Amino acid sequence: MKEPLRIGLAGLGTVGGGVVEILDRHRELLAARCGRPLVLAGVSARHRDRHRKLKIGKAEWYDNPVKMAADPGIDVVVEVIGGEDGIAKTIAETALQSGKSLVTANKALIAHHGTRLARMAEKNGVALRFEAAVAGGVPIIKSLREGLVANQLVEVYGILNGTCNYILTQMEMTGRDFNDVLAEAQELGYAEADPSFDIDGIDTAHKLAILASVSFGVEVNFAGVHIEGLRHISAEDIAYAHELGYRIKLLGITRFGAEGIEQRVHPCMVEIDTPVAHVEGAFNAIVAQGDAVERTVFEGPGAGRGPTASAVVADIVDIGRGDLSPAFSVPAKSLKPCETYPMAERRGANYVRLLVVDEPGVIAKVAAALRDANVSIESIIQRGQAEGDLVSMVMITHEAREGNMIQALEKIGRLKTVVEPPTMIRIVTF
Amino acid sequence: MKEPLRIGLAGLGTVGGGVVEILDRHRELLAARCGRPLVLAGVSARHRDRHRKLKIGKAEWYDNPVKMAADPGIDVVVEVIGGEDGIAKTIAETALQSGKSLVTANKALIAHHGTRLARMAEKNGVALRFEAAVAGGVPIIKSLREGLVANQLVEVYGILNGTCNYILTQMEMTGRDFNDVLAEAQELGYAEADPSFDIDGIDTAHKLAILASVSFGVEVNFAGVHIEGLRHISAEDIAYAHELGYRIKLLGITRFGAEGIEQRVHPCMVEIDTPVAHVEGAFNAIVAQGDAVERTVFEGPGAGRGPTASAVVADIVDIGRGDLSPAFSVPAKSLKPCETYPMAERRGANYVRLLVVDEPGVIAKVAAALRDANVSIESIIQRGQAEGDLVSMVMITHEAREGNMIQALEKIGRLKTVVEPPTMIRIVTF
Repeated sequence: MKEPLRIGLAGLGTVGGGVVEILDRHRELLAARCGRPLVLAGVSARHRDRHRKLKIGKAEWYDNPVKMAADPGIDVVVEVIGGEDGIAKTIAETALQSGKSLVTANKALIAHHGTRLARMAEKNGVALRFEAAVAGGVPIIKSLREGLVANQLVEVYGILNGTCNYILTQMEMTGRDFNDVLAEAQELGYAEADPSFDIDGIDTAHKLAILASVSFGVEVNFAGVHIEGLRHISAEDIAYAHELGYRIKLLGITRFGAEGIEQRVHPCMVEIDTPVAHVEGAFNAIVAQGDAVERTVFEGPGAGRGPTASAVVADIVDIGRGDLSPAFSVPAKSLKPCETYPMAERRGANYVRLLVVDEPGVIAKVAAALRDANVSIESIIQRGQAEGDLVSMVMITHEAREGNMIQALEKIGRLKTVVEPPTMIRIVTF
Repeated sequence: MKEPLRIGLAGLGTVGGGVVEILDRHRELLAARCGRPLVLAGVSARHRDRHRKLKIGKAEWYDNPVKMAADPGIDVVVEVIGGEDGIAKTIAETALQSGKSLVTANKALIAHHGTRLARMAEKNGVALRFEAAVAGGVPIIKSLREGLVANQLVEVYGILNGTCNYILTQMEMTGRDFNDVLAEAQELGYAEADPSFDIDGIDTAHKLAILASVSFGVEVNFAGVHIEGLRHISAEDIAYAHELGYRIKLLGITRFGAEGIEQRVHPCMVEIDTPVAHVEGAFNAIVAQGDAVERTVFEGPGAGRGPTASAVVADIVDIGRGDLSPAFSVPAKSLKPCETYPMAERRGANYVRLLVVDEPGVIAKVAAALRDANVSIESIIQRGQAEGDLVSMVMITHEAREGNMIQALEKIGRLKTVVEPPTMIRIVTF
């Protein structure tokens, strides 16, 4: 058996603690599988006292994780602190520049600096790995990078944020409204006190930008992701979706096309026989479509101590086995710029819900605005009274150019008889 | 870029043809991803004339694939001929003993000789890979061996044969009987002229034995798999399953326990919210449960030219990248004997259907036989007349020891009022 692999772990929170547990519990199993012992050689965290229960063995304690990242006694640095900049970034750069491989669970870091870090890793002859950054326990990065390596991938999409999916599932099951379910999710610990990263789609966008890069051999382009969150989805929308044979899911979607890479995060109406339609609660699911493999689906827990630590340790084992191949499938210098396909050029059907004053001529005005933008209506539902003389008006459009659709909705939103901003949910068919 | 990897391809049928196509179509992409060119250096097949349309480029033709497997001009041998013995085995052994890595899509070969071939590979410092042998395009071997490497896996199960799942899905959708649907599947090319490998569960058992070995670090033990096929499943069973809230799926199930490894293939009644319940048609799905990752699900096409060739080429790329790690997760010499948990000790609920003469006392006799074997009945449905004075009697048992259940059914089968062998389908909860 080869020399031990000496691990330096920066961060002892939920994920870091899980990594320590797995390294301890499966010491022998991991050594047999990796072909060499995995030794926790160093740890660092903000508060030394908090982690007395963790079996860190003979690992050296570092007050300064950057010092650990530079220490010649460490072979691979594991960063599970989080945050796109600050200490996490400094640790990552220090590790790579010191000739150590880096394993991270930090999606923000990779979404913002992935290409640059990959170049740095390759320049120093070490590996950069981030399986835990996307979909927790699901080995999706490995599956795209290695399992489906023989494919030109054409489309990758999925449910990438458990909090959003939990909220949508609860809304669907209970008929309750968004804010109500969010408050409960926060109480139960399924949503953060500041939930905006999750519910505004930013976390999903971080992961999507990473998936796009791995799948299509382009630079990570988080800034090029079109992002919409969940806040505008109402119980009424959920009920209408159900009635129309759809489910609402917050999806990240990326597609490879001659005119650019589509990267978008937004609530979608999906048909109930779509693979992602049945994924419930905090689970994640990713669908990959390749030119040889057709459609493959990967599903599992997207977060949590065990699943995320499982992914981190898998990356460590790969490095221990000697895999130093490029982080994003091809060498970082060969990654192409990620030219984003403009969202306005998307063509698709849409669900639109308006709250309107129930008076003669309102349908005519709305219909005229759509017609002027070259959007045709497939069906309209208008019934029941919301409050006073207000009613909901729900429309499904035929396939239309998104730019035209937005233009029409702006016009409709300015109508006096339309009393709140229109809700539009894209109907997505796979 | 490194030296080209010189591939020798034995077999130019569906899968072999697919491999040639991918190597040609994605020449540049694969070179970038692998870090070295993949060159088709040699091909061999039974009938040279048949393959004129394939772009085999400058590959050397070998009338004898064994000669190719021994040729120093070849780095990696790809065997896509099939069959557990005969020429496929000779090619595999020759390649490994000549110091060449072997990639195969041959589940029968690996199920019967996997451990021995893995030892041979390690002795010669080369790799043995067989991603395409299980679930076609789904990278399940890689996911278990690498993606979930940090886990003690506890249970792996799934739909591993597309033909069986196609037949069951058709039976469910149309209400038609097994033989009828099978005949149609044969006409459409979804089932072989001799369908026994598929519908008798042997193909599923080959794959299951491989999954058990990779998952639990045990020797491949195909002989230790309990195998039952589909032939006894009737349209009536499908209808009853539906009524009772179940679906019938042919599953391969393997579990790791202190008392041995469960390995079994048989039709199962699964609850409709089980991840595999919604997998339809020729698709495969595998569910893996690990101690850290919880439940992960992998789904995709289990067979076909593109998906299977995709898996073969992924193995080639891994070898080209320098991955020579052990085939079954741990070195072959460390694989433990696969001690099979005896099927008679299984505990579970069961669905039982009997065709009985509709006369007084028949329920009493059946109930007595079950009671004598210590099996208790949860519910009985008896209604409608099958033909003349015969009726179907359907029972769900409480959880019972399988040995006792079989004993009771043998007794029941000998009753004069029971006119055909009892049908038993295990109810499996996950």
